[in-house]
Amino acid sequence: MDERLKKQLDFALEIDKEKNIFRQTHISGHGRRENDAEHAWHMALMAYLLKEHSNEPVDIAKVMIMCLIHDIVEIDAGDTYAYDAEGLKTQKEREDKAKERIFSLLPEDQKKELIALFDEFEDYKTPEARFARAMDNLQPLILNNSNGGNEWVEHGVTSEQIYGRQSKTKLGSEKIFEEVTDKIIQEHIKKGNIKE
Amino acid sequence: MDERLKKQLDFALEIDKEKNIFRQTHISGHGRRENDAEHAWHMALMAYLLKEHSNEPVDIAKVMIMCLIHDIVEIDAGDTYAYDAEGLKTQKEREDKAKERIFSLLPEDQKKELIALFDEFEDYKTPEARFARAMDNLQPLILNNSNGGNEWVEHGVTSEQIYGRQSKTKLGSEKIFEEVTDKIIQEHIKKGNIKE
Repeated sequence: MDERLKKQLDFALEIDKEKNIFRQTHISGHGRRENDAEHAWHMALMAYLLKEHSNEPVDIAKVMIMCLIHDIVEIDAGDTYAYDAEGLKTQKEREDKAKERIFSLLPEDQKKELIALFDEFEDYKTPEARFARAMDNLQPLILNNSNGGNEWVEHGVTSEQIYGRQSKTKLGSEKIFEEVTDKIIQEHIKKGNIKE
Repeated sequence: MDERLKKQLDFALEIDKEKNIFRQTHISGHGRRENDAEHAWHMALMAYLLKEHSNEPVDIAKVMIMCLIHDIVEIDAGDTYAYDAEGLKTQKEREDKAKERIFSLLPEDQKKELIALFDEFEDYKTPEARFARAMDNLQPLILNNSNGGNEWVEHGVTSEQIYGRQSKTKLGSEKIFEEVTDKIIQEHIKKGNIKE
């Protein structure tokens, strides 16, 4: 087989392992925990549906591919829970190693392209990265909200922690932050599911 | 909340159920069966990586969104196995009903847009639909191949059945059909995993 196509298929098979990386978020209906592949599918689709609410116009193909690849490094590095202070300290080192190993399976030009997209997503600077990251915040928020905020209770999450992460949604979409994120957080503070 | 945004979020939450629709295909490493959300994530990402092999130039955003939504109807209609002759007879009717119910959760313009994309995918006529469907065939093929062709053995699949479906990959990518699909099928016929 053509060497380039072989590399692309080796990568396609390797990333199948993302379906085994389980997150803290549970699927709706008080279901099991969801995995990274399901999460990425959900946020890419939400990005397409909600793109009109982005603060700035976005190249939606770029947003979607960022969503689809943003957790591939967790195949090696594992999922780091958003409010796990210890895990967050070593997250970058673990993920950098994984990024190099996994994307190196691709032809060189695609390795560079996907690493650039991955880094752009991490950097929060372009309209596409900001909107994709807003989806990365919104997707687990609506699932956890649909399940009565159980995860926040279980992990003893505080309003400071949750605003620390979720207020960045504003960078991608003021509208979604104000109309959805903030309202959901306030409701769960009121109910005592998120500690003040 | 803004009525339009509310409808979009209701739809986003409804489609979470796709994570409960399990397919015949197993994940790599002789793992469990995969679900529709995982399958859609995998094929959208493969479409992006392999787009250079499409017979015709494609709008990749359109290909990716087609991949992401193409199984949403199975939330109501269930998964119909590619070689289940009885199930295939009622598939269209079941899926049409589901399509109407689920996409109606969206604002009217987005309902129309997503149904048009869904129908375009089904119709195999545009370059985007043909390439997306090539990915719909290729993704389970490489997983099943990685697991030693177990599913073909289990379901007693014949070469006629498999070529009936997989030869349509040619419409999207001659190169992938010749270099990957056909070689994998021939290998498994030789090994006796696919009946002649």
